[in-house]
Amino acid sequence: MSQNIYDQQDFFEKYSELPRSVKGLDGAPEWPHLQSFLPDLTGLRVLDLGCGFGWFVRWAKEHGAETVHGVDISQNMLDRARGMTEDGKHDGITYQRADLDELRLPEGDRGSYDVVFSSLAFHYLEHLPELVGKVHGALKPKGRLVFSVEHPIFTAPSTQGMQVNPETGRKYWPLDDYQKEGLRVTNWLANGVRKQHRTLATYINILLSAGFELTDFHEWHPSPEELAEHPSWDTEIVKPTFLLIGATKK
Amino acid sequence: MSQNIYDQQDFFEKYSELPRSVKGLDGAPEWPHLQSFLPDLTGLRVLDLGCGFGWFVRWAKEHGAETVHGVDISQNMLDRARGMTEDGKHDGITYQRADLDELRLPEGDRGSYDVVFSSLAFHYLEHLPELVGKVHGALKPKGRLVFSVEHPIFTAPSTQGMQVNPETGRKYWPLDDYQKEGLRVTNWLANGVRKQHRTLATYINILLSAGFELTDFHEWHPSPEELAEHPSWDTEIVKPTFLLIGATKK
Repeated sequence: MSQNIYDQQDFFEKYSELPRSVKGLDGAPEWPHLQSFLPDLTGLRVLDLGCGFGWFVRWAKEHGAETVHGVDISQNMLDRARGMTEDGKHDGITYQRADLDELRLPEGDRGSYDVVFSSLAFHYLEHLPELVGKVHGALKPKGRLVFSVEHPIFTAPSTQGMQVNPETGRKYWPLDDYQKEGLRVTNWLANGVRKQHRTLATYINILLSAGFELTDFHEWHPSPEELAEHPSWDTEIVKPTFLLIGATKK
Repeated sequence: MSQNIYDQQDFFEKYSELPRSVKGLDGAPEWPHLQSFLPDLTGLRVLDLGCGFGWFVRWAKEHGAETVHGVDISQNMLDRARGMTEDGKHDGITYQRADLDELRLPEGDRGSYDVVFSSLAFHYLEHLPELVGKVHGALKPKGRLVFSVEHPIFTAPSTQGMQVNPETGRKYWPLDDYQKEGLRVTNWLANGVRKQHRTLATYINILLSAGFELTDFHEWHPSPEELAEHPSWDTEIVKPTFLLIGATKK
């Protein structure tokens, strides 16, 4: 079972203040690149795993998707997502509260989706191989899985946090335990946030084993223009935080 | 043009003493996993890019390959490789001295190889995308490219070397400059060894752009049994050194 940190009040309140919570997709610097992995959604059936406030669910509907089904573990987030769905403009949107580690999709959904999307949710899951197998079953042939996770270089260290070399003044990321997969407990927004570290090889092999072809792969970093506008993003040059992947059902 | 460090006498003498130089493939801990990416070589035409002392060239011939063509920049290494080819047992082996950054294969080789292999050579090259394009052209349809490189986590840091946290006593790898691709000058066996750092995304996208399907991906680490036998390999748990990839021409 996954931790439902988003229904813990202190975490939820701080999360709600992040740019990606306030501004939606435009507040997520990696979104333009992730979006480039998506097909034209016109007339497609879309599933969003870990939909949060529903920013992508609404965006997909507004960009022509026929139906969009959003799944999230957090009642707080689904309540707010439902509150932002305007009648008429968002017909065809459905929401489901579920732990992705124990997801059950309706039997009728088998082989029915064109696109499965997930933003920064999979690294919370203990049973990702099982979920990716369910996603493969839920997709039509040649269907697309497009997702982001926290990068394994980011999730690996026993103690996460950028360091500065006192002699050179240079920032570095003290990587360790890369090959020790499993639970990491971090203090991001709240104490005791539970994540699952997996290596890059494990992410890729979960996809290949399930029957996907890897088609898109990006380790997000700011462009020179973005870096000039947001100097603090220089930490993304030191080490990547976001891993973006696109795959096609074979 | 690549640096020809293997023909620099001090480097060559030290390199010749490494387990992988003395024992061949059995002295390379990552070899069993890399081997698992290869098809049965019986009757196949094989190309080895950066063949060094020719350990893989001879192994492939002894495992049924019809022909094996080895390419290397180092005259020292090719001389020794030729010296280890026994008449009769190794008919069908040819060697070529060439800088892989400027490789020209005979025009008749186009679409003629079943397997292209390369061990720990590609991270020296400035023009890897061009070489991978030539490899794609040299392979038959469904032909295999199997290679290893130094892992991007290993090549990235401005100053390479394992560190120890004085407070915890734990080893860590001070990662930085991950997204700054290009030249790294290291002092391994000799001063001034020139390598090219590329991110994981770049390695993968070079393959996808050239028309390969990614089929095998492994970040080498010792098994618990290997770790018990070689305790100093615990550094491979902290961070990976070897990246192993298999791909199929689409």
